[in-house]
Amino acid sequence: MSDEKTTVGLFGFGGFGQLIAAHLAPHVALRIHDPYISVLGGVSLAEAAQCDVIILAVPVAEIRTICEDIAGFLRPGAVVVDVGSVKLAPIADMVECLPDHVQIVGTHPLFGPQSAAEGIAGHKLSLCPVRGEAWREIGIFLRRRLKLNVITCLPEDHDREAAMVQGLTHLIAKVMGDMGPLPTRMTTASFDLIARAVEMVKDDPPTVLNAIETANPFAAKVRETFFERAEVLRARFDV
Amino acid sequence: MSDEKTTVGLFGFGGFGQLIAAHLAPHVALRIHDPYISVLGGVSLAEAAQCDVIILAVPVAEIRTICEDIAGFLRPGAVVVDVGSVKLAPIADMVECLPDHVQIVGTHPLFGPQSAAEGIAGHKLSLCPVRGEAWREIGIFLRRRLKLNVITCLPEDHDREAAMVQGLTHLIAKVMGDMGPLPTRMTTASFDLIARAVEMVKDDPPTVLNAIETANPFAAKVRETFFERAEVLRARFDV
Repeated sequence: MSDEKTTVGLFGFGGFGQLIAAHLAPHVALRIHDPYISVLGGVSLAEAAQCDVIILAVPVAEIRTICEDIAGFLRPGAVVVDVGSVKLAPIADMVECLPDHVQIVGTHPLFGPQSAAEGIAGHKLSLCPVRGEAWREIGIFLRRRLKLNVITCLPEDHDREAAMVQGLTHLIAKVMGDMGPLPTRMTTASFDLIARAVEMVKDDPPTVLNAIETANPFAAKVRETFFERAEVLRARFDV
Repeated sequence: MSDEKTTVGLFGFGGFGQLIAAHLAPHVALRIHDPYISVLGGVSLAEAAQCDVIILAVPVAEIRTICEDIAGFLRPGAVVVDVGSVKLAPIADMVECLPDHVQIVGTHPLFGPQSAAEGIAGHKLSLCPVRGEAWREIGIFLRRRLKLNVITCLPEDHDREAAMVQGLTHLIAKVMGDMGPLPTRMTTASFDLIARAVEMVKDDPPTVLNAIETANPFAAKVRETFFERAEVLRARFDV
């Protein structure tokens, strides 16, 4: 990515797409396409697809469709990058639906609009090389220019670890959120930490929880273990 | 509590008793009694019971027994203070077992050896006036000298709020702790917060979880709601 000259087509201008746009705008020529959200200066699907780098900031369940839609417009050597919360499934979709002449990189930024409200520097991002060598330059850009903590990994290793990290966080946040307003007066330091965590993810769109729980092949096992342990604990006190 | 002259008899020298001793030592004449732990310079039960202020840093389930044991030694006007995680039950025990000529104050320091590892200033403490006016002077001492955030409240209000705060924290910490080593590499900010919360309470003695879950009359309802919500979530994904 040689700055300034690099054109980036951003597909999806939801919460995360907007975060990407804010942080990439100073470094690249951004062309945004979203069929549902009106974007000032937004471009057509074809125009966004003809950029040097294409970022798919759409729900994991829509990766396949968007790949099929843009496949015919992509230029040879272009790099397609996703930002989904799981990696195995969307990477398989990209490999299957995108022409051989494009490069593919999977990423999962381990932060969101809430947790990165005060900047993205120091936050973590998982980077999965898939096809081509562009991942190296992208990794350098993310590290040096955006100051991210880049973790290069295999899609499977990502999904295994993320199943526990995100699966547990979202299960806990969902259950806590469902319990109504949380106390703020007689709180302990540990409770305050959990409440902050809940606050960070509670506004995530429902597609995030769905992606984590249904598209991550390791999530069911984590969920099962969590609920089993909870059941044991419940039995211990409800006698 | 006019400093220096005030004698404080501390019953119980476990994790929390040691924390109390460390922070009170500069301000009062401390006399420690613990039947199970060898304390350098420890005193007899009778000697500790004859102080101006008596602090019961024993498990909630042992409050009644210790009150019966010390009742005959207490001086008129002495102040007996507990530090248990629930307030209704131990306060009822103290009122029933302690002679009318002693004052009674219930407290619940909303911190522990882990969360207050870097000092107790700014941490919260619930203070329940029970018998006599000594709670006022104690509140002033805790605020001004120990810099605590003192919340004066009724035992019932404490237990209702603490049931949610501590009940949820310990349920989550127990379930997470049972799941084995938590990931540290591909973590999100929200997961890191939850992991820190788990770390803070995981070394609490089992008596703490037991007191919260069985001695707090509001805990069962919180637990029930938590597990019900979890069940709904489980059903949603396990189809």
